[in-house]
Amino acid sequence: MRAPQSLSLHALRDIPLVEPGDDLADCLIAALRDSGQVPMDGDILVIAQKIVSKAEGRYVSLDTVTPSERAVELAERLGKDPRHVEVVLSESSEVVKVGPQVIVVAHRLGFVMANAGIDESNISHEKGARVLLLPRDPDASAQALKARLDAAFGVSLGIIIADSFGRPWRNGIVGVAIGAAGVPSVIDEAGVKDLFGRELRVTEVAAADELASAASLLMGQAGQGLPAVLVRGFASPAPPKPASALVRDRARDMFR
Amino acid sequence: MRAPQSLSLHALRDIPLVEPGDDLADCLIAALRDSGQVPMDGDILVIAQKIVSKAEGRYVSLDTVTPSERAVELAERLGKDPRHVEVVLSESSEVVKVGPQVIVVAHRLGFVMANAGIDESNISHEKGARVLLLPRDPDASAQALKARLDAAFGVSLGIIIADSFGRPWRNGIVGVAIGAAGVPSVIDEAGVKDLFGRELRVTEVAAADELASAASLLMGQAGQGLPAVLVRGFASPAPPKPASALVRDRARDMFR
Repeated sequence: MRAPQSLSLHALRDIPLVEPGDDLADCLIAALRDSGQVPMDGDILVIAQKIVSKAEGRYVSLDTVTPSERAVELAERLGKDPRHVEVVLSESSEVVKVGPQVIVVAHRLGFVMANAGIDESNISHEKGARVLLLPRDPDASAQALKARLDAAFGVSLGIIIADSFGRPWRNGIVGVAIGAAGVPSVIDEAGVKDLFGRELRVTEVAAADELASAASLLMGQAGQGLPAVLVRGFASPAPPKPASALVRDRARDMFR
Repeated sequence: MRAPQSLSLHALRDIPLVEPGDDLADCLIAALRDSGQVPMDGDILVIAQKIVSKAEGRYVSLDTVTPSERAVELAERLGKDPRHVEVVLSESSEVVKVGPQVIVVAHRLGFVMANAGIDESNISHEKGARVLLLPRDPDASAQALKARLDAAFGVSLGIIIADSFGRPWRNGIVGVAIGAAGVPSVIDEAGVKDLFGRELRVTEVAAADELASAASLLMGQAGQGLPAVLVRGFASPAPPKPASALVRDRARDMFR
């Protein structure tokens, strides 16, 4: 009997509500120390987008937004707040599809997603209506967190910033990566032989998305205060790639 | 310090190559026994589609296929074997999109996927060119495996039959569920309150797809003989739903 190849995931507890200006790296380091999990080389910390955005102060007060004509028109069709639609459009490079309750856009980061990733759940409205944008540069945010955590623990970690996306054709949202550092977000398996020695034709695996989905099973979708999950045991010889490598080139995308 | 909420995944080793007529349940029971993992109530066994199809003898010899006019025409456009295209079409209820190297179809099971899930990797060609179809009814296959495994171990397990799908807009394939039993494939979170007491607007989580993606991290894409992964620790009070619940109704699908 050989030991099975294993993966383990641990949700960190007691991460406090994050406010703009909070030092998120400090927060995560403290939560890791409290968890009793000693980070090891190759461990991957998956972090919910929401707490990264909050720490970066990516709030927009709707009071400060003047909707464009296009936003007003779309908002009317969708029964939404035109200021909210304006923020969605201003975060986007392209409107891909307008559905009954959603605007699917290409975010300026490249990700095709509903409402430019802007939602209003888990946001306190005490200070008036406001929305929360994605981090300005999630790959850079992941890289900065990696530098801080690596230094604190004397190891080399992977970092993934995860969001939950809907998909065409399938019900339900799943965890996906929007930022990554020290992780092979996309693994190129070109040249890998199958069991019968033929080269595999499917050549790319979206490992960071699969890791984000796995972590999402513990985070829950309701933001129950479990916004960070430590993944241990994912070994890949593939080189690190940022989450931007997950964005399909527009020219190669038959669904745009 | 409280224990973190955890999930663990163990790939079963030494599952032999599966041939038509093999008793897959016996195979999996033996592999579980050999693994030293004693299955517990609520554990979920994720199984690669390929071994389910093989055990069910879902091979089609291309020699026996006469391509239709439409298949010949599509095959010419795509540079594919017209008999292969014919099998894809015969497994499908609708052609959703024809790309440079791929036919995206609605499989008769409802899943929108490339080439009706038919690929030629990890298939021995000793007996002449043949392709492998999806299981005839993956939810029923999962249910039958669940009955056998539950009886063998005296517990109630979840079963997921997993495949790897490409996606619009994003590079790389990810694990998804095409069959499930004893698992809440889709979890309805309508009515769940966010941290500030407002109802969440996103109401469905594709838990079976996230579980399939998680297991896929251990299976690898090259079919290296790790086609079954035991997942422990996924607790959900949601009622079981088959993988067919993951198929978005055509009427509600803005991408068809």
